[in-house]
Amino acid sequence: MSKPINVLEKFSQFDEHWTPHVISELNGQAVKLAKVKGEFVWHDHAEEDELFLIYRGTLFLDFRDGETVAISPGEFYVVPRGVEHRPYTKDEEEVWLLLLEPIGTKHTGEVDHELTVKEYKRLD
Amino acid sequence: MSKPINVLEKFSQFDEHWTPHVISELNGQAVKLAKVKGEFVWHDHAEEDELFLIYRGTLFLDFRDGETVAISPGEFYVVPRGVEHRPYTKDEEEVWLLLLEPIGTKHTGEVDHELTVKEYKRLD
Repeated sequence: MSKPINVLEKFSQFDEHWTPHVISELNGQAVKLAKVKGEFVWHDHAEEDELFLIYRGTLFLDFRDGETVAISPGEFYVVPRGVEHRPYTKDEEEVWLLLLEPIGTKHTGEVDHELTVKEYKRLD
Repeated sequence: MSKPINVLEKFSQFDEHWTPHVISELNGQAVKLAKVKGEFVWHDHAEEDELFLIYRGTLFLDFRDGETVAISPGEFYVVPRGVEHRPYTKDEEEVWLLLLEPIGTKHTGEVDHELTVKEYKRLD
């Protein structure tokens, strides 16, 4: 019998920024954790909706229509497939977030960037 | 531009027990909230994995092999498809949980019980 997964305990197992770690899978979806700070790249995911659930700090998402969404701890936001977005944090704040998206989703979409992670780490 | 969803605010919008409320959808999955107290029925979901993320109280899941899993706030557990389980709470504690499962999953599986909800409510 496997044990429940404690989300904050999993966050304590890594420090890298912009590097999603897979903590569970179900129905073809992966549950990933990431710590982020500063700016990420504009990107989209052609076929994948992406859920951001925030555990610490405030995550900002810019959209190409000029809108910005701010997501605070206890809140989540779903970016629909095909919608370009740019995640970032303000004032050097480190933000902790849980991602839910199909297994195999690349975090920078089709954009190949120095931040692009080729293979996701798995926390057991 | 839609706004982020505050999970605790959504919990404040209903009181019924064992009645999942849909708060979001992505990639064919539904994000649902439920408040539960007491015992639920034995059931499984033949084709659907089911994630339980706990926000308040402790949820217990019995399995047919005699094992019990206790899930506390900040923890989640995935029940694989086809695995019979019985959710319950102890000592009349009300437990708040977030469910993630494919859209259309029936909360009692194929078991038709007085607790079975025919159509899920949606919180907007």
